[in-house]
Amino acid sequence: MSLHGGDIYKIYRETNIKVIDYSANINSLGVPKNLKKHIKNNINSLVNYPDPNYIDLRNSISKNIKIPMENIIVGNGATEIIFLFIKTLKPKKTLIISPTFAEYERALKENGSEIHYFELSMDEKRFFIDFENLKTELNNFYDLVVFCNPNNPTGSFTKPEEFEDIFRSFPNTKFLIDEAFIDFVENGENFSFKKFRNSNLFIVRAFTKFFAIPGLRLGYGISFDKEILNKIYEIKEPWSLNFFAGSCGTVLLEDKKYIKKTIKTLKREKLRMLKSLNKIKNLKVFESHGNFFLIKLKKITADELYENLLKYGFLIRKCENFKFLDKTFIRIAIKDNKNNKKILKTIKKLIDY
Amino acid sequence: MSLHGGDIYKIYRETNIKVIDYSANINSLGVPKNLKKHIKNNINSLVNYPDPNYIDLRNSISKNIKIPMENIIVGNGATEIIFLFIKTLKPKKTLIISPTFAEYERALKENGSEIHYFELSMDEKRFFIDFENLKTELNNFYDLVVFCNPNNPTGSFTKPEEFEDIFRSFPNTKFLIDEAFIDFVENGENFSFKKFRNSNLFIVRAFTKFFAIPGLRLGYGISFDKEILNKIYEIKEPWSLNFFAGSCGTVLLEDKKYIKKTIKTLKREKLRMLKSLNKIKNLKVFESHGNFFLIKLKKITADELYENLLKYGFLIRKCENFKFLDKTFIRIAIKDNKNNKKILKTIKKLIDY
Repeated sequence: MSLHGGDIYKIYRETNIKVIDYSANINSLGVPKNLKKHIKNNINSLVNYPDPNYIDLRNSISKNIKIPMENIIVGNGATEIIFLFIKTLKPKKTLIISPTFAEYERALKENGSEIHYFELSMDEKRFFIDFENLKTELNNFYDLVVFCNPNNPTGSFTKPEEFEDIFRSFPNTKFLIDEAFIDFVENGENFSFKKFRNSNLFIVRAFTKFFAIPGLRLGYGISFDKEILNKIYEIKEPWSLNFFAGSCGTVLLEDKKYIKKTIKTLKREKLRMLKSLNKIKNLKVFESHGNFFLIKLKKITADELYENLLKYGFLIRKCENFKFLDKTFIRIAIKDNKNNKKILKTIKKLIDY
Repeated sequence: MSLHGGDIYKIYRETNIKVIDYSANINSLGVPKNLKKHIKNNINSLVNYPDPNYIDLRNSISKNIKIPMENIIVGNGATEIIFLFIKTLKPKKTLIISPTFAEYERALKENGSEIHYFELSMDEKRFFIDFENLKTELNNFYDLVVFCNPNNPTGSFTKPEEFEDIFRSFPNTKFLIDEAFIDFVENGENFSFKKFRNSNLFIVRAFTKFFAIPGLRLGYGISFDKEILNKIYEIKEPWSLNFFAGSCGTVLLEDKKYIKKTIKTLKREKLRMLKSLNKIKNLKVFESHGNFFLIKLKKITADELYENLLKYGFLIRKCENFKFLDKTFIRIAIKDNKNNKKILKTIKKLIDY
């Protein structure tokens, strides 16, 4: 289960070190104050089952993203939504635009899909899609294409308009677009694939990263295909979001102050980190539209840097288990200024000697 | 989605009535104080992903029920555990001892099992198992038998010893025993099927009802079959319990005061209610080992009583959608003395005229 970043519990059990976690891409502003207040004031509501239809939550999301409530399905983190969609669709042949988040592959394998990978080339495209190549590949009849946008772990971001021709050209292919990081893009909502309102499209969203609540488990899906939504509801377990997850959507989405501050802080820290990273000789950093950076190391391996940084109390994400990446790649989150400075100084010391 | 009790949200949306919920079998003592304190003090931990292995939680359960941690798997309510087990086992032919909780059937149908029902007869056995008949039935080669003990909604309870002969006689059959209500049985732990430590046995447990936290989503499974546990872990979604669910086990299991008070209060209120119910002419009440009563109405239908009680602010569970029950059955929870008196007085008024 070390498929993902953020397993600080295992690290703590094994090393007794309480690390600063640069391996999970979580908003460094931390749990929103309004959410804390909401939870404190509503603990007694645990005595009731959650609303199995999560009407209030879906209503809040609907108003916020301007998509009808009936097109929105909520889940126990984006993960539940991804698993439900793939289990329902049961695609025979899938193309995953890679390197990317590992759970798509897990869900696909579990449901017996043949999996192919479309490589985002580092050298020629710096991990952006080569649309001509993609179009050629899609002539091989895929039931499903999976694409994470902004992409984890590369940070690359594709505007929906660039994808429009692909949708039109392959009307028999479904597209799973994971927008778990889109809130970190300035005016991200304007760049969502939702604008196509296309029944071949299934969009995944998460509250996790932006609102710094991976412990809460809250995500949702957007679909314009009634049939697939009905099928998902047929197999969905009741009450998969607990009361806190189910009731906090409104509080979070209305917290405009937190949202603004996040975008502003991230923009500033991203620029600062990028500048500093570019000054470190023995690595190459990639432009990112997320709240993290993918980095290629030139001198030492990810394993070595990982072990050394752990001694300084920093946990980073090794990227070897991402398809098409290898032992030279790491991913680090963008956190608060003080810690960012510290980790970059340490990295510089560890690799530019 | 009105398969279950407790959907107070729908009632509120449709009628604007905030009901007293006798339809869900939740401990009337409410959310434990220690749990509230724990949650208030740990909100900031939402910033981390839950421990994907839930070591602390499984450790607490292990100590408490005296079963090794590796035999315990935790889930988002008992429901996730039931679904995972059935999905992993994929039984071709299943016998459900009925009437009982509806989610087994849903999970089995989803996984393509042929389903048969073994009827707990009301007239001859007052919903207790006729073991001779069961043995005869099991000669028809079942992959899985599902049994809820104490059984929801009948309240009947079978001591594990009575089942022992069945286990021995059918070594090729698996048994899913749902003990979601066993904590309400005095010294219930002594009557758990866990004592058999048999690899054909899969036991389901829940924190939901006893600790009055259906909003939290916390359950677990006990298995002595390593192979099946490994297979479940392969398909389990990571982090299906959120931080609060994953971190409160210790607090709850160590709250001996709450546990004792629950058993004591329940015993007293159950007796009081039983006495009063027996004084109402136009119904028949069944002995219960849970925190609820199954009742057969003699004069009016469950629909009529349901609608009438709603006018008085009480929500009850109609039982028509339980296999082998019909429009004359209702289930009511055992709650606090004041409300119990009120609802019984109202029922008497509504049916003994």
